[in-house]
Amino acid sequence: MTHAPPRRLQTLMQALQRLPGVGQRSAARMAYHLLQHDRDGALQLAQALQEAVQGMRHCVLCHTLAEEEVCPTCADPTRDASQLCVVETPADQAAIERTGAYRGRYFVLMGRLSPLDGVGPDDIGVRPLLQRLQATPPVREVIVATNFTAEGEATAHVVTQLASALGLHVTRLARGVPVGSELEYVDLGTIAHALADRR
Amino acid sequence: MTHAPPRRLQTLMQALQRLPGVGQRSAARMAYHLLQHDRDGALQLAQALQEAVQGMRHCVLCHTLAEEEVCPTCADPTRDASQLCVVETPADQAAIERTGAYRGRYFVLMGRLSPLDGVGPDDIGVRPLLQRLQATPPVREVIVATNFTAEGEATAHVVTQLASALGLHVTRLARGVPVGSELEYVDLGTIAHALADRR
Repeated sequence: MTHAPPRRLQTLMQALQRLPGVGQRSAARMAYHLLQHDRDGALQLAQALQEAVQGMRHCVLCHTLAEEEVCPTCADPTRDASQLCVVETPADQAAIERTGAYRGRYFVLMGRLSPLDGVGPDDIGVRPLLQRLQATPPVREVIVATNFTAEGEATAHVVTQLASALGLHVTRLARGVPVGSELEYVDLGTIAHALADRR
Repeated sequence: MTHAPPRRLQTLMQALQRLPGVGQRSAARMAYHLLQHDRDGALQLAQALQEAVQGMRHCVLCHTLAEEEVCPTCADPTRDASQLCVVETPADQAAIERTGAYRGRYFVLMGRLSPLDGVGPDDIGVRPLLQRLQATPPVREVIVATNFTAEGEATAHVVTQLASALGLHVTRLARGVPVGSELEYVDLGTIAHALADRR
């Protein structure tokens, strides 16, 4: 078999397949692209990977990926320590921050429950969440802000149980009709929730 | 802005976007996946990238990516040096090898002309091809086996002109009806070519 790719190229193609969403064909295309047209990019990526693995860890308070032991958000003394907003990902946290409507603390699960994909409570930050809920200064309200998907709801259920068992007040982001939308085009489940949660 | 991702994470996301087909969202997903669930994979990828960049170069004869100065196929003394099959990629070369129907030499352009994407003759191996065509032992027949796509045909045109100018005999893979297909379902252009090239 002189036609298998050379060893180093094969190793690279296999390593690229560890990336989510990258199969055999994309890995080959990526490997050839880097070696043909972007060797600088390949070396930069190698260095970025090493530095990220060495330098990134979980914030001991909110579990997000951070360069410091305590991330900048958790280290901000002006934020309200009595409220803890639980989100799935840093992107969700950023979305809430952009509203400017929340000044409490966060906990980032870094994932969602997905039993079908083999993602259980131990694969997301449920254990560190438990520690966080028992830490001082005490949290009074847990705002569950996981996504309104099947996985997000399952995750919300687990978080709610955990926080309730500790006697904490638990709230969930309101479900309802999105701002700017016409009822005619909103799905029935959303309208039903908006009716039930009317105020 | 405490909500931008930490610096090392941003650097990693940007580096991942140098991969073809990877945009901002996939890069973020890849970075989080590696740091959350596959730090070993990240380090392996970093090492594979470095070793590939250090250890892979173009074969001086056929221009494919190889670990040696002359790749195993070119170094095989049993292959017919008078025939040179010009392909776009190592994957195309592998497809021809799998037929077992060709025992000549290869030249791998490592790309195809694509003026719309800014890929000109100097971005693929046209210059090394010219050198190869003038090397000894002399090539007698150049078999143009680029793909039958618009870019492949444009590439074939350039290769044909180059080889013809050197007085070499140039052939192109036959176009025709694929083995096992029914005429009813074959596109008209293919049937027209099969008619014109009937034998």
